[in-house]
Amino acid sequence: MAAASSSLLAASSSSCCAAAVSTRRARGNPAASASFPSPSRALLRVFAARPLRSRAVAGAATAMQPPVASRVSTVVDVDLGNRSYPIYIGEGLLNEPDLLQRHVHGKRVLVVTNTTVAPLYLEKVTWALTHENPNVSVESVILPDGEKYKDMNTLIKVFDKAVESRLDRRCTFVALGGGVIGDMCGFAAAAFLRGVNFIQIPTTLMAQADSSVGGKTGINHPLGKNLIGAFYHPQCVLIDTETLNTLPDRELASGMAEVVKYGLIGDAPFFEWQEKNMPALLAREPSALAYAVKRSCELKAEVVAQDEKENGLRATLNLGHTFGHAIETGTGFGAWLHGEAIAAGTVMAADMSHRLGWIDESIKKRVIDILEQAKLPITPPEAMTVEKFKSIMYVDKKVADGLLRLILLKGPLGGCVFTGDYDRNALDETLRAFCDN
Amino acid sequence: MAAASSSLLAASSSSCCAAAVSTRRARGNPAASASFPSPSRALLRVFAARPLRSRAVAGAATAMQPPVASRVSTVVDVDLGNRSYPIYIGEGLLNEPDLLQRHVHGKRVLVVTNTTVAPLYLEKVTWALTHENPNVSVESVILPDGEKYKDMNTLIKVFDKAVESRLDRRCTFVALGGGVIGDMCGFAAAAFLRGVNFIQIPTTLMAQADSSVGGKTGINHPLGKNLIGAFYHPQCVLIDTETLNTLPDRELASGMAEVVKYGLIGDAPFFEWQEKNMPALLAREPSALAYAVKRSCELKAEVVAQDEKENGLRATLNLGHTFGHAIETGTGFGAWLHGEAIAAGTVMAADMSHRLGWIDESIKKRVIDILEQAKLPITPPEAMTVEKFKSIMYVDKKVADGLLRLILLKGPLGGCVFTGDYDRNALDETLRAFCDN
Repeated sequence: MAAASSSLLAASSSSCCAAAVSTRRARGNPAASASFPSPSRALLRVFAARPLRSRAVAGAATAMQPPVASRVSTVVDVDLGNRSYPIYIGEGLLNEPDLLQRHVHGKRVLVVTNTTVAPLYLEKVTWALTHENPNVSVESVILPDGEKYKDMNTLIKVFDKAVESRLDRRCTFVALGGGVIGDMCGFAAAAFLRGVNFIQIPTTLMAQADSSVGGKTGINHPLGKNLIGAFYHPQCVLIDTETLNTLPDRELASGMAEVVKYGLIGDAPFFEWQEKNMPALLAREPSALAYAVKRSCELKAEVVAQDEKENGLRATLNLGHTFGHAIETGTGFGAWLHGEAIAAGTVMAADMSHRLGWIDESIKKRVIDILEQAKLPITPPEAMTVEKFKSIMYVDKKVADGLLRLILLKGPLGGCVFTGDYDRNALDETLRAFCDN
Repeated sequence: MAAASSSLLAASSSSCCAAAVSTRRARGNPAASASFPSPSRALLRVFAARPLRSRAVAGAATAMQPPVASRVSTVVDVDLGNRSYPIYIGEGLLNEPDLLQRHVHGKRVLVVTNTTVAPLYLEKVTWALTHENPNVSVESVILPDGEKYKDMNTLIKVFDKAVESRLDRRCTFVALGGGVIGDMCGFAAAAFLRGVNFIQIPTTLMAQADSSVGGKTGINHPLGKNLIGAFYHPQCVLIDTETLNTLPDRELASGMAEVVKYGLIGDAPFFEWQEKNMPALLAREPSALAYAVKRSCELKAEVVAQDEKENGLRATLNLGHTFGHAIETGTGFGAWLHGEAIAAGTVMAADMSHRLGWIDESIKKRVIDILEQAKLPITPPEAMTVEKFKSIMYVDKKVADGLLRLILLKGPLGGCVFTGDYDRNALDETLRAFCDN
């Protein structure tokens, strides 16, 4: 976790960023009110211990790059050898059937979506899948919306639909929706007939900036979040940033918690850019949102390429999540949105890091400020007691041989560690500081 | 699928076979009444198209080989690169704690077993896991016994136990039982926390000779067999052939269907050996059973190493299974044992192969004879109609873009093909010949 810059990544990400902005401007979008960080400041200190891969932030030269006429402004490539896949980011990508169709395997598609997203985008996606492509037939399964339905009973509905439709191994599942849909559809694709192809079409900021990338799929257990699942990667992630126009404000803020996380764990300039541009992001300034999504995807792709199965580095993507998952589980899934719980959890992680003497108070304050600016909660709900936190946190996937490991901030802005080597008193003090009892 | 011998595999398997027999005899077992095929006849024609790997039949020189004093008579190594694992085969291996303990990861173990096997072997396995090993604690979950419980509801019991016991990613699941337990425990291990370690301790001939090896895990869907699952490999397979002493006759016969399959799809001398030694096998002659298990494991390990995810070659292990799975599904899972359904399915596959002109009538007759000798059914149950067969078979995992592919016998004894290129009339004729309506 040494602090050092990587000129390779800085260079390729900056060229990518520039391409993204110019492409979008060329298409007549409103001039960006957001300012973008200069290339030389795009540091990734948390990743400096291992060589960085330029493919994770592929630019115009990659084989995956669509034709010039396309609306794809950025392709971020998740480099996993023969399981590599592209993340397409751009406005109006659902209007480009070719992009989607090139990643469909077989002739049968099952779109997994929910009652909120289906009326908005199911018809459009079905059109994109079948336009000038009469060989493909599309089925869909529309699940109830919300984290509380990310469970075995709802998952079974996907299997039922797939079996009843007689889908075979040469079919493709398409996840159309937010993080819950992506996680469930991905796990269903991993387990149906021991694995079929799938495509992610995330429609929330949470899913576009974070959960659709990296292959973590799964469902909740009544006693804990994401305890049942698989590492299973899509054929591609197709991010049409126009879908953010239909996202409720609360959902937009929820996704912002993960965007903030990416700055905090490894990219101080990105965090500083967010501090300046949070008003533009909340006002849904297209180029600002697109940049936030793109930079988050780049950072995630970089981490996933280095540590697919979360043996170490990847755990840093869970900053605030151990506290946050406890909030989600303790309040019964769905009372708070995922990002809301993560926001409060991130403040708690920052508080504990500060108590350990690992970060300055100024950093803790900046964490609180930016999350407040994003209209996110900075304390857990009243229902969460110290004991409730502890009992749930010890079911977390990052517990190893009984030792609870946490992601904590350390050093200057943008630095973090994943460790079980901390003073237990600091954890107790943080929990007591944030809970009434 | 050309017919040709491989001197490499023939040589290594023969040395392995000799070692197995001599080790077992040295321990004072009754002299084998069964005769073993000569090394030069151990052909694997079905595999001849690709280079054979000697590691799949590792002998005394492998690193996995236990000390000389051990009761392990054979180690078959499943060669999957960094996911390779050994299959230990021998009498009384559950009396050797070292063997099991070396493959346990972490300090917590969950033994998954059933109401039939638990009274027989749970205490012994718990002892083997903890003997002189006070750091390890063992939990267990005892599931109802039978194919009809290989479903989501029963699987959830395993997750519940794991979560309630606060097992973390550094735990190990142990499957103690037959094929149903192995498949369910393996899938639970694949999905719990997105993947934990597991060990197979098969206690039935079905599981020892077939299902515990190769990483296919899963559960049934009400409309089809094994439709939900994962490819997920154990740390090791520990086969204590003494456990076959407690196996009911019907279960022993059921396992024999898979042993017969291995001869039919790729090892004519093994089939001929079975024809001569079926009485010894049914009389549970230890060295005959041990040889049947060992040779089946060798053949399966060889196939799995070449085609882990069933892109082609591995499908041949499903001879008789498409018909057989239809019987199991159509009769509601559990009315017939898996091997019983496979036996009838194998006869149907042989019948269809003969109708296609792909095998001589003499081979079809030998298939029927050996299965009858093993006291297995050679026709499907009355409840199965032509329509029932067809509707279920088209949900099979081997359907691709609507085309039902089958494993059929072709050429001289020991030859088979996996193909969708056959005359549909032959399938119809076979179904009509075996069904009353």
